[in-house]
Amino acid sequence: MFREIVAFRRSPQFNDRFRYDLKQLLRWRRDVRRFRTDAIPETLVEELLDLACLAPSVGNAQPWRFVSVDDAGNRAAIIANFNQANARALAGYHGERAQLYAGLKLAGLKEAPRHLAVFCDEGTAQGHGLGRQSMPETLRYSAVLAVHTLWLAARTRALGVGWVSILDPVAAAEQLRVPREWTLVAYLCLGWPTEEQDEPELQRAGWQARDAACRQVLWR
Amino acid sequence: MFREIVAFRRSPQFNDRFRYDLKQLLRWRRDVRRFRTDAIPETLVEELLDLACLAPSVGNAQPWRFVSVDDAGNRAAIIANFNQANARALAGYHGERAQLYAGLKLAGLKEAPRHLAVFCDEGTAQGHGLGRQSMPETLRYSAVLAVHTLWLAARTRALGVGWVSILDPVAAAEQLRVPREWTLVAYLCLGWPTEEQDEPELQRAGWQARDAACRQVLWR
Repeated sequence: MFREIVAFRRSPQFNDRFRYDLKQLLRWRRDVRRFRTDAIPETLVEELLDLACLAPSVGNAQPWRFVSVDDAGNRAAIIANFNQANARALAGYHGERAQLYAGLKLAGLKEAPRHLAVFCDEGTAQGHGLGRQSMPETLRYSAVLAVHTLWLAARTRALGVGWVSILDPVAAAEQLRVPREWTLVAYLCLGWPTEEQDEPELQRAGWQARDAACRQVLWR
Repeated sequence: MFREIVAFRRSPQFNDRFRYDLKQLLRWRRDVRRFRTDAIPETLVEELLDLACLAPSVGNAQPWRFVSVDDAGNRAAIIANFNQANARALAGYHGERAQLYAGLKLAGLKEAPRHLAVFCDEGTAQGHGLGRQSMPETLRYSAVLAVHTLWLAARTRALGVGWVSILDPVAAAEQLRVPREWTLVAYLCLGWPTEEQDEPELQRAGWQARDAACRQVLWR
């Protein structure tokens, strides 16, 4: 035990092998919508949550709040919320885009064995407001950082994560009966993907390709 | 060349060693405010930007926009912006908290060899609005995901990143003369840290400790 703690506190050095693997992780992490239905061991979900809480947060406020949505009625309410938001979104497209949109699979809510909603506790006293007087949105950004950490950690276990943002977030918070100060940041589906891909699904579907122009730097 | 491409497209398997190192990376990534002043090779910054662009984004919109702030006048303007925002924040604290706040080092803007501002292009047509009709904030969240990716990648190169959020973001956008549709998401300092730590600086300073309660899960 003592040896382990000592080892942990020694500043790590990362080598080329690790950097290569990390790049692979970043390349092969996907927004997954096609899941197998087999259950995820609870210990694995616990491990992911432990890692997610190592994320940075403004003022060390740790404002992430996790809600595991397992009740069939609550899942059905979220699926209905998605269907409504998705129909509304579809109505905003026309012609070929609408056809393309209608053909996309945008969530795996029915198949995914786990639903995890991530909220930001806007009322938290933790962090004592530090770092977010002039940019209060950084509190929600901190919850986003926890989501991303969980996402990467999941992929190292071959687990897929799908972020469902086609939802009315206020209705979702009501459906899940969370405290009034909690804002929905991300609704996640977790499960084993039916396929591995290094190309974004929306690129494969002809919706939106990667664009090298986004990588350009303005010099000021 | 061909062999490399083939190798890259084979779905990676991650082992215990990689997962251990990734946990170390998450534990030892810090918000750094104490930098050495030596320059960062440009190739290294380029590498970090390449990796940052592998981040997930809503609708594959890739809304992150990078601004390298190198001009002395622009840096001075940002430092003045920080000083003003920080003085205003300090005025909101009283008694011991105010004393504690005044003693914190909250940014390394003067020492850090590189300043990188990350914006979200709210006007981008990329992604064709997919996934952000009901939660438009996910566009900014996508830029946050790029910031986090860059942050982790930097740490694998022993480089420190400090996220400065004590800024008037609208004034910063004006100071850096970016397009009107760009919203400041993060102002980053980059450089080699003067020390390595696995404990958040705000915890060491007695401002805000890690809190295990944030890890609790609500079941719904």
